[in-house]
Amino acid sequence: MQCTVRPAIVLSSGGLDSTTCMAIARDRDFRPLYSLSFDYGQRHRQELVAAQRIAKLFGAEHRVIQIDLRQFGKSALTDQIDVPKDRDESQMSAAIPITYVPARNTIFLSYALAWAEVLNVRDLFIGVNAVDYSGYPDCRPQFVAAFEAMANLATKMTVQPDSQPFKIHTPLIHVSKAQIIQRGVDLGVDYSMTHSCYDPTPEGLACGHCDSCLLRKKGFAEAGVADPTAYAQR
Amino acid sequence: MQCTVRPAIVLSSGGLDSTTCMAIARDRDFRPLYSLSFDYGQRHRQELVAAQRIAKLFGAEHRVIQIDLRQFGKSALTDQIDVPKDRDESQMSAAIPITYVPARNTIFLSYALAWAEVLNVRDLFIGVNAVDYSGYPDCRPQFVAAFEAMANLATKMTVQPDSQPFKIHTPLIHVSKAQIIQRGVDLGVDYSMTHSCYDPTPEGLACGHCDSCLLRKKGFAEAGVADPTAYAQR
Repeated sequence: MQCTVRPAIVLSSGGLDSTTCMAIARDRDFRPLYSLSFDYGQRHRQELVAAQRIAKLFGAEHRVIQIDLRQFGKSALTDQIDVPKDRDESQMSAAIPITYVPARNTIFLSYALAWAEVLNVRDLFIGVNAVDYSGYPDCRPQFVAAFEAMANLATKMTVQPDSQPFKIHTPLIHVSKAQIIQRGVDLGVDYSMTHSCYDPTPEGLACGHCDSCLLRKKGFAEAGVADPTAYAQR
Repeated sequence: MQCTVRPAIVLSSGGLDSTTCMAIARDRDFRPLYSLSFDYGQRHRQELVAAQRIAKLFGAEHRVIQIDLRQFGKSALTDQIDVPKDRDESQMSAAIPITYVPARNTIFLSYALAWAEVLNVRDLFIGVNAVDYSGYPDCRPQFVAAFEAMANLATKMTVQPDSQPFKIHTPLIHVSKAQIIQRGVDLGVDYSMTHSCYDPTPEGLACGHCDSCLLRKKGFAEAGVADPTAYAQR
């Protein structure tokens, strides 16, 4: 079966979705795995610390790319905004997350494509999801398909007549948070190693009240799985 | 006529092609102009100095984005390579330029899309050329068309039903270097302000022998225009 083993790049935020995505890539016999994260001015380092930890668990080579968008001025990244707490689902779906970066997934995927070309890798996994946070243009299947089509015209590695095409895998795109967690548990993911909170304590504990914590709690509850997250307040 | 005036972003390297592109955008009544450059580990700063100078000449707001690709390891950016000199055209077209960055135009255009979203700008000019250096996948019309299609699915600004689409203008894509120079001269471009050399002297004089200098010299000769470039050696 060794002839079917292929390498893959996985975009990793150290969170629940991208870690499940990495487990799915491993389960589908992609190896070695390469983990790619972005430092784009997040409020805290917990996310990148978690991504590093998870890459190590999976034996994946890990790279962190600095994304410089602060000079664009109007980006929310440069503003000091309080993290909203205890919002209901209608409030969440109406608002732009504080971590919003214009054209973010386009930029992330472009760097992934560059790394894929350097490594000569044709398979990329991204944990985008069109169920939670639906409505974000760059999480939709038609965006991912358009990016894939563009990528196959963009680099030397895929334009030769007999070359394998570049493929973007989105195994979580139509799946609920509870289903993601159930899938991850089946694949042996230890979710205590992942980090989702937008506003952790200085010690790295999850706040339990931001949008990301609330969605995570709800996912575990709906999946009927004990939530292993270390919350600052229960 | 004021109602037809629209803003545009122009990708600028401070060189001959992108400066001509900026002049064409101005001639087509796009204003204000926004100039976007990238610091991706170039061997020298002359290119960014020229881009700054040209943006000022055109009254364009100028931004320089740091592109971090060095961590990808195998990129030519991180290697110390001598700039090839005095090559003929067959040698030039066979080789990857030392400044090659994997998926470079994809990354450049992704940042431009992000800035366009911040500014709510729908028009982007890029001086790609499929005549000189033909064969680069990300300089071909089909690549640009695929990026444009993807971009129109990627951001909040263009997915509303009645929104204006995002448009990538490539006025130089089918034009020779001599025709680019002739067009620029007609539009009043002062090419002494532009910088093309890969390997300038510490004082900023062009070497006159790298691929970029040779193509530039040939372009002026074929256009029948006096070359205003300050070369270190004639």
